[in-house]
Amino acid sequence: MSNYSTLNPSQRILMGPGPSDVHPRVYSALSAPIVGHLDPEFLQVMEDNKSLLQMAFQTQNRLTLPISGTGSAGMEACLVNIVEPGDSVLICINGVFGMRMKDVAERCGAHVTTVEAAWGEAIGVEQIEAALKTRAFKLVGIVHAETSTGVLQPLVDIAKLVKGHGALFLVDAVTSLGGVELAVDEWGIDLCYSGTQKCLSCPPGLAPITFSEEALASMRQRTKKVQSWYLDLSMIEKYWGEERVYHHTAPISMNYALREALVLIAEEGLEQRWQRHLSNHRALVRGVEAMGLEMAVNPEWRLPSLNAVKVPEGVDEAQVRQYLLHNFSLEIGAGLGALKGKVWRVGLMGYASNIKNVILLLTALEKALGLQGIQVEKGAAAQALSG
Amino acid sequence: MSNYSTLNPSQRILMGPGPSDVHPRVYSALSAPIVGHLDPEFLQVMEDNKSLLQMAFQTQNRLTLPISGTGSAGMEACLVNIVEPGDSVLICINGVFGMRMKDVAERCGAHVTTVEAAWGEAIGVEQIEAALKTRAFKLVGIVHAETSTGVLQPLVDIAKLVKGHGALFLVDAVTSLGGVELAVDEWGIDLCYSGTQKCLSCPPGLAPITFSEEALASMRQRTKKVQSWYLDLSMIEKYWGEERVYHHTAPISMNYALREALVLIAEEGLEQRWQRHLSNHRALVRGVEAMGLEMAVNPEWRLPSLNAVKVPEGVDEAQVRQYLLHNFSLEIGAGLGALKGKVWRVGLMGYASNIKNVILLLTALEKALGLQGIQVEKGAAAQALSG
Repeated sequence: MSNYSTLNPSQRILMGPGPSDVHPRVYSALSAPIVGHLDPEFLQVMEDNKSLLQMAFQTQNRLTLPISGTGSAGMEACLVNIVEPGDSVLICINGVFGMRMKDVAERCGAHVTTVEAAWGEAIGVEQIEAALKTRAFKLVGIVHAETSTGVLQPLVDIAKLVKGHGALFLVDAVTSLGGVELAVDEWGIDLCYSGTQKCLSCPPGLAPITFSEEALASMRQRTKKVQSWYLDLSMIEKYWGEERVYHHTAPISMNYALREALVLIAEEGLEQRWQRHLSNHRALVRGVEAMGLEMAVNPEWRLPSLNAVKVPEGVDEAQVRQYLLHNFSLEIGAGLGALKGKVWRVGLMGYASNIKNVILLLTALEKALGLQGIQVEKGAAAQALSG
Repeated sequence: MSNYSTLNPSQRILMGPGPSDVHPRVYSALSAPIVGHLDPEFLQVMEDNKSLLQMAFQTQNRLTLPISGTGSAGMEACLVNIVEPGDSVLICINGVFGMRMKDVAERCGAHVTTVEAAWGEAIGVEQIEAALKTRAFKLVGIVHAETSTGVLQPLVDIAKLVKGHGALFLVDAVTSLGGVELAVDEWGIDLCYSGTQKCLSCPPGLAPITFSEEALASMRQRTKKVQSWYLDLSMIEKYWGEERVYHHTAPISMNYALREALVLIAEEGLEQRWQRHLSNHRALVRGVEAMGLEMAVNPEWRLPSLNAVKVPEGVDEAQVRQYLLHNFSLEIGAGLGALKGKVWRVGLMGYASNIKNVILLLTALEKALGLQGIQVEKGAAAQALSG
């Protein structure tokens, strides 16, 4: 016998930066009996995931599939298949994930130019316009929903600029896909990646991606093999396409779970889902402000799925998070990088974006602050319902 | 409502090259409630997986953890963290996975020398000895258990040679870990990777790896950043180490499942498990030979977890596989590459390595061959029990 106890994780309420809570139907799908990775039944699951992801991304792109890794593997898959050593790329940075994009692009041998905004602010169209005048770029990368700051980046005008310049437009939709409006084809996005554990409310482990025809054409014109074998889409697309050529063994169970998570979105309706995320976000903001606390991001840029709340003066922010975890089994996130110690990151993603969670958090937060001697306005939870 | 039907996969018996059947306790763990990737409860799961993998690999290596991708991501993680452009590496090829190792090493910029054996044969010590005399190699890579051919490669003498040469020894243990004797420390293996979906009997999605102190030292002496951000162990080890620095969101559910799969191994006992795989393999061989069919690999090199059986003259091998799948929900694998159309690959891995499966396969195979007008010796299934 082993000395390891039975796995018995707590029932958390996941209101951090992800993973988010998982729907019971997704857990059931996750533990459905596995079949082989070339079994006709699994090939059907792959086909379903492809068309369901096309729905979620709002695209007709043929190359739309989940990469067998987490969101960051999706980022790397997009860059590594397009960028060759010496290529010029423009990366927008206003948080952790823009920085990561720059790091990944440099590892592909790119010459990276950056456009930056303060953490908590969006990138301005005019900044990108100015940068595009300095040289020709093969690709422009930007984060739609910065999980590290809670900023929702407007994309439509930037997409037009980038396409006018003749560059490929790469968008990080890790914390927006399935929670916030995103229209890959209509907006003119060429490369987009996400993760399963945010607004799709599926456990972490897969990274949905989509490539436009322009992106595919660029990929076909490479002169050098993709530096990552595992993420080489010229091979992966043959497994996901009609040829069904074995590349690697797909994560069967995770693909089952993703399918169910996407079916739940199809049933709810994508626009209704965006509306639900917006409405619960607004309720949270009303409550936070009624309490006398402040949101860290200006109203015009607030991301419904990830809400950065300023830590009041004199509060031990880690102690508050621990109090919520230990007393309410409720997880919220700490600040990262420039915002470390300055904000809490409150996720309202997918299945976890509901009014019960908003009310619980506001009430528990009031109590946690009180325990640190910080008196806030009472009744904030009720204010959340006043919209 | 959506047009997608409820996911309802068939109960397969998975006797192909992997994935293998999953124990009910592993399915339960897979669908346990997820917690955050920095939750104290998940950090404990990570610690458990580290020590359980040390047990399975038979190593004390500190850097022992599951990479967040499938087995091939494990291969890439080993090579990409060690190999820098211009490095000389020696790769042994006697099947698909040796070829893959060469491809991955070349994408890292390595100068690759190969030592080759026919598909279905092991690499000879003297071949490696001769190659090592031609130049200095930074790394020598070999496949312990070639899933494409069913060859178990003897490693002990080769390890001594490689260490004597001063090179790092890289071993692919995808189809051996947890099913066949493997002693990383005792044998002198520096880098070893595996997959979860073979003899560990966990769904596909993670790649256990282990790095020796020598491998770590080599990694620290790099002059260039690792070309893959996602697989950069200098960052991943800080998430798995005491610092707990966020790198990517670990696949929570898959880590739960891996933990349970490894606890099952600890309960059974590693040596008892190797013995079980050997005993069921021997039963299968007795039955196959009693039927008048032939194994494709010589007895000295046969891999207990993956059995290549020669397709008799005049048999439509794909039709046999389809018959088994449709009539018995039993999956076996086709030949790959040089063995395409020439062999069936019969997996006896982990939970699926049991005498019931051996008997069913032999009986069903007899029937399938009979339907194609091929008469084989009767009573092979009973012969399997005669050992």
